[in-house]
Amino acid sequence: MSKDSFGSLFRVTTYGESHGPGLGGIIQGCPPGIALSEDIIQRELDKRKPGQGAASTRRKEADLVQILSGVFEGRTTGTAIGFHIANQDQRSRDYSGIKDIYRPGHGDITYEAKYGIRDYRGGGRSSGRETVSRVAAGAVAQEFLRTLGIRVLAYTAELGGIQARVQDMAGAQKRPFFSPDPEVVSIWEELVQEVKSQGDSLGGIVEIRAENVPAGLGEPVFDKLDARLAYALMGVGAVKGVEIGAGFAASRMRGSENNDQMGPDGFLSNHAGGVLAGITSGQPLVVRAGVKPIPSIAITQKTMTRQGTQTRVNIGGRHDISAIPRIVPVLKSMVMLVLADMVLLQRAVKTTENR
Amino acid sequence: MSKDSFGSLFRVTTYGESHGPGLGGIIQGCPPGIALSEDIIQRELDKRKPGQGAASTRRKEADLVQILSGVFEGRTTGTAIGFHIANQDQRSRDYSGIKDIYRPGHGDITYEAKYGIRDYRGGGRSSGRETVSRVAAGAVAQEFLRTLGIRVLAYTAELGGIQARVQDMAGAQKRPFFSPDPEVVSIWEELVQEVKSQGDSLGGIVEIRAENVPAGLGEPVFDKLDARLAYALMGVGAVKGVEIGAGFAASRMRGSENNDQMGPDGFLSNHAGGVLAGITSGQPLVVRAGVKPIPSIAITQKTMTRQGTQTRVNIGGRHDISAIPRIVPVLKSMVMLVLADMVLLQRAVKTTENR
Amino acid sequence: MSKDSFGSLFRVTTYGESHGPGLGGIIQGCPPGIALSEDIIQRELDKRKPGQGAASTRRKEADLVQILSGVFEGRTTGTAIGFHIANQDQRSRDYSGIKDIYRPGHGDITYEAKYGIRDYRGGGRSSGRETVSRVAAGAVAQEFLRTLGIRVLAYTAELGGIQARVQDMAGAQKRPFFSPDPEVVSIWEELVQEVKSQGDSLGGIVEIRAENVPAGLGEPVFDKLDARLAYALMGVGAVKGVEIGAGFAASRMRGSENNDQMGPDGFLSNHAGGVLAGITSGQPLVVRAGVKPIPSIAITQKTMTRQGTQTRVNIGGRHDISAIPRIVPVLKSMVMLVLADMVLLQRAVKTTENR
Amino acid sequence: MSKDSFGSLFRVTTYGESHGPGLGGIIQGCPPGIALSEDIIQRELDKRKPGQGAASTRRKEADLVQILSGVFEGRTTGTAIGFHIANQDQRSRDYSGIKDIYRPGHGDITYEAKYGIRDYRGGGRSSGRETVSRVAAGAVAQEFLRTLGIRVLAYTAELGGIQARVQDMAGAQKRPFFSPDPEVVSIWEELVQEVKSQGDSLGGIVEIRAENVPAGLGEPVFDKLDARLAYALMGVGAVKGVEIGAGFAASRMRGSENNDQMGPDGFLSNHAGGVLAGITSGQPLVVRAGVKPIPSIAITQKTMTRQGTQTRVNIGGRHDISAIPRIVPVLKSMVMLVLADMVLLQRAVKTTENR
Repeated sequence: MSKDSFGSLFRVTTYGESHGPGLGGIIQGCPPGIALSEDIIQRELDKRKPGQGAASTRRKEADLVQILSGVFEGRTTGTAIGFHIANQDQRSRDYSGIKDIYRPGHGDITYEAKYGIRDYRGGGRSSGRETVSRVAAGAVAQEFLRTLGIRVLAYTAELGGIQARVQDMAGAQKRPFFSPDPEVVSIWEELVQEVKSQGDSLGGIVEIRAENVPAGLGEPVFDKLDARLAYALMGVGAVKGVEIGAGFAASRMRGSENNDQMGPDGFLSNHAGGVLAGITSGQPLVVRAGVKPIPSIAITQKTMTRQGTQTRVNIGGRHDISAIPRIVPVLKSMVMLVLADMVLLQRAVKTTENR
Repeated sequence: MSKDSFGSLFRVTTYGESHGPGLGGIIQGCPPGIALSEDIIQRELDKRKPGQGAASTRRKEADLVQILSGVFEGRTTGTAIGFHIANQDQRSRDYSGIKDIYRPGHGDITYEAKYGIRDYRGGGRSSGRETVSRVAAGAVAQEFLRTLGIRVLAYTAELGGIQARVQDMAGAQKRPFFSPDPEVVSIWEELVQEVKSQGDSLGGIVEIRAENVPAGLGEPVFDKLDARLAYALMGVGAVKGVEIGAGFAASRMRGSENNDQMGPDGFLSNHAGGVLAGITSGQPLVVRAGVKPIPSIAITQKTMTRQGTQTRVNIGGRHDISAIPRIVPVLKSMVMLVLADMVLLQRAVKTTENR
Repeated sequence: MSKDSFGSLFRVTTYGESHGPGLGGIIQGCPPGIALSEDIIQRELDKRKPGQGAASTRRKEADLVQILSGVFEGRTTGTAIGFHIANQDQRSRDYSGIKDIYRPGHGDITYEAKYGIRDYRGGGRSSGRETVSRVAAGAVAQEFLRTLGIRVLAYTAELGGIQARVQDMAGAQKRPFFSPDPEVVSIWEELVQEVKSQGDSLGGIVEIRAENVPAGLGEPVFDKLDARLAYALMGVGAVKGVEIGAGFAASRMRGSENNDQMGPDGFLSNHAGGVLAGITSGQPLVVRAGVKPIPSIAITQKTMTRQGTQTRVNIGGRHDISAIPRIVPVLKSMVMLVLADMVLLQRAVKTTENR
Repeated sequence: MSKDSFGSLFRVTTYGESHGPGLGGIIQGCPPGIALSEDIIQRELDKRKPGQGAASTRRKEADLVQILSGVFEGRTTGTAIGFHIANQDQRSRDYSGIKDIYRPGHGDITYEAKYGIRDYRGGGRSSGRETVSRVAAGAVAQEFLRTLGIRVLAYTAELGGIQARVQDMAGAQKRPFFSPDPEVVSIWEELVQEVKSQGDSLGGIVEIRAENVPAGLGEPVFDKLDARLAYALMGVGAVKGVEIGAGFAASRMRGSENNDQMGPDGFLSNHAGGVLAGITSGQPLVVRAGVKPIPSIAITQKTMTRQGTQTRVNIGGRHDISAIPRIVPVLKSMVMLVLADMVLLQRAVKTTENR
């Protein structure tokens, strides 16, 4: 485990702040021979790009990725893949007013406690903008997983307490809010407009589903596949809860209800979410993340200055109303990064006999 | 991340199965000079010992720990601490009947998919018995944390859907079910008896609270403190969900409601659960784990044999009715292991200036 | 990298001191299905057992290994292999006289600087006795490598400045001093007797050779195979120098002389020692370690007490005259541990296309 | 251990090839508050810049570094420091002739065995050009070490078999060949001209010395400080041997000669090279690396094509005659990276009592 690195064999390490020259990272362990280009990564980056939906910031960032190494004649070489995404619309001046104020719900106070120094421009390293590197790395993982037939889908299961019916996961990829439910979209849009007019913000729940995952991924004891998923998703800024399969609902079931029995055609249910004893069973992986509302709101809040005096703050500016939908491709990327890594770990385990 | 190892600087690596000679582990990175003895570890092991409450297995294990290295004249030396807990009551014969059957809700089928070989005696490495090593390691972490004034409490917030009032967390340590609520105990005991008579099992929710945690623990980006906690707790066999602070409830709040504002005496609420941007704020850490019902039930279930034929199985034997309460000291241990590691990581960061 | 752990995928973590209950370790990542028993490990341990040759200590240790987990019905299960070797002949009284004295050439002074506390009995964790765990782990690695046809040989190339002719490496495994040269044995024995009578000690050079190593092992940039070997060997207490292939001699060659050209049947020389750009070429791996003389000598030396006063010390007792030959199986084990790990890492890299 | 990453707490991860857009890396774990600028890094990069001395390539690279993150108002923030060095003079056409030929002494054949694909332009990831990132990272480590008063010097101890007298290590930093001996410079220059005229190349020996290193750095067992140094130096492309202190010469000494005794003013010699039992003693660290001659020579050599047919090759082009002197700042950087990491690890160990 390492602060800016994720994964053991398929591993990404990132850098960058929202107001520096740019953000990027290095992907280690991507197998050789995978078709890869800037266009392929760009397609995924475009899904989290700001300024696209009702709930998004008006900050304009083209988020154009440049591949710096590790690709030769359109294929990965097996060596480190460097990539960089330049910042364009930095507007440092927006943030100078809050230089000495701890914004409620932000890391201002904790970064200062940790480091004794703080890049106050847009949150520095704690900015949600760091997730652009996660999506770029996830796009590379996706190309690798594609060669194995593994497909990962992510969609919004709930926004501001209003649930979607999870019925069209594939279609969700192109629908507003990555909604798996065509009918809930307009209801959510109304809610977003209402909350925006109040200067407030919204949370929600994102579900990620991986299909065609081979049985046998995951490690015993500490490094279970579900542990890795929980680590991956909870490490995304806005996430406050993670559950797999039936999740917290399983804690209210009896064993006879929660157990997934097996019939002649395989499992009869999937309360486990595709993982037994930390290892994939071959059933679809199903995991959910609870996303808190964006803390930057245009409502006056009580807070403290760096000098310890009481004050009030109203965060105007170009903020999203909700981390949803832009967090959806980020969470999907994290699941893909976990799976790519676990596939490589499992390759190492395999012997001639059990191959 | 590594299957049998946990932590980066304060790190435990474990071995052992329920039906071999014993279980144990190696603790690396425990600072020198900490008072430590077998008695200190034993006190914690006794809290998860089988055969103690209404919900527990009748398997008898003394679970006596032996320290093998790293302690000299009653104090840690800073070098590797080895420990071993011998198995006593192994009764392999109990399990021979299920050698060729995949028990629903167990890792039988996934271990076999992963390794092509399976120690069918009591689940082998996937046995819940491996958690004895976690508690031993947690006891060592606790002694280290004690020197810093950090205190971790764990208690049952819910059993079989029946909530406790979380009101006496310190008293919970000595109450049946580690209940923070004296009045719910008898209700839970009735429920356990009822479910036991049905041959069924129960889940629940455990909450862990760490007090006097210094601000500044946790790392940016991937290795946030909450990510580590999620990894730690979700890596315990029965856990299917993890949330921090308000958790999933935060996803239904507005930002104005969820944000923890600050008054002259500090934070006015703790929806964040003590973590902002992945780093501790100095508020108490509050994290919850959703625990699924024990899959071994005395009710006939549909399943499959290793040969792929349909069959039915009724798991008799000496099983717990619920992972609660024995899982409570296990989850507490995981939180302590995370904190011990994060404290050491933070020491490395500190410079003279910000100390 | 971690003090008591070695390797990334095939990984051993050890504990133990020379005067505690025993020493042992945990092996992670050994593939499933490898035939393994205590007898197999014991055969290797017996090669480094004290009390065998002219140069060895008279300390008697049976060094009997017990496997604690990870083996089921004679085969590895793929999960953690725990092992323990009990100390029998501890004689703590031998060491009480030097409790407050820093022995020249030993870690007494540096351990105390590091930890502020020191287990003075036989060097504690810095005792050469810790290498017993390396040999046990190496024996397991050897069984895995055997399934791939890889064979590792180690032998003494030089003792006390007297070179052996490296001509019978296979026979060396059963010859005194692990000598690859039958004729040098009696010369070395004379030298040992002479130095022993002087109360002094000897160093030497050990060469390790791995045959049938597949091309492609090793990683680019920092984690080259030769870097790993250097780390592995230099991490053994007495080693002060490591070279691969022509080693330091290559620094005095011209490029035209040092380069290994290729003819129709492959390489025409092996100055590289089997590694090009950090990756195996398919030629035999050849690596050498320079071993310093044992620092414990029966000659009076100037030193300091813990209190900083000047004193003299004469280390009597049951010490080896040279780390050779007992270090030979230790160094062989380290090379095998490196190879086992690198094989697993390479498995993860392989794609369908290049398999 | 990881191919493109080095270090555990003070950690650098790199990317880049000699013929792509550029090279760079990410430094994690640099403590906050260290003064840092592009100028500071540039000064070190300029020391390894091509085209400076008699032995160097005529390739022109400005090697201008750009800091991408982790520095705010002239000081490190404690978060990831990204940096990039653009390639300018790529000339891919120089290499097209050897696309299908395995150059003797190069990684062409082993990279192809490993990955099944090879970026043949200038060696791809195996190019010596990757060391530019090591020097950039080393420059950052140097700034951190400077705040602790630790100073690292590197110099050429031998070139083409001709030894320097190691007498002016500080002056060596500004002398041709980083020579610690003013008189040997002209002799080495003559040798270089002679070898160059023959189309051949030269090796040598580099010594690195660290002064004012605190006692207590390094870890027991596997991760000894000397093991880390060996790993660090042997991982640089041209290095074939590493020794610490007396090194291989110690293997020919008696214990009474090799042991560093202690007088009233401390150690009476430094055969150990500043490390006892893997941990620094407070004496200067002294380590040497044996550097092989550059394999690219303008002399016809026998080799093989990718298709397995016998051929001959004459590597013209813009190559260095020797890795010395450009490798000197690279090796110095590796030692500084090791020390920075070990300092951070030691901080974590320290307790109030032994601080």
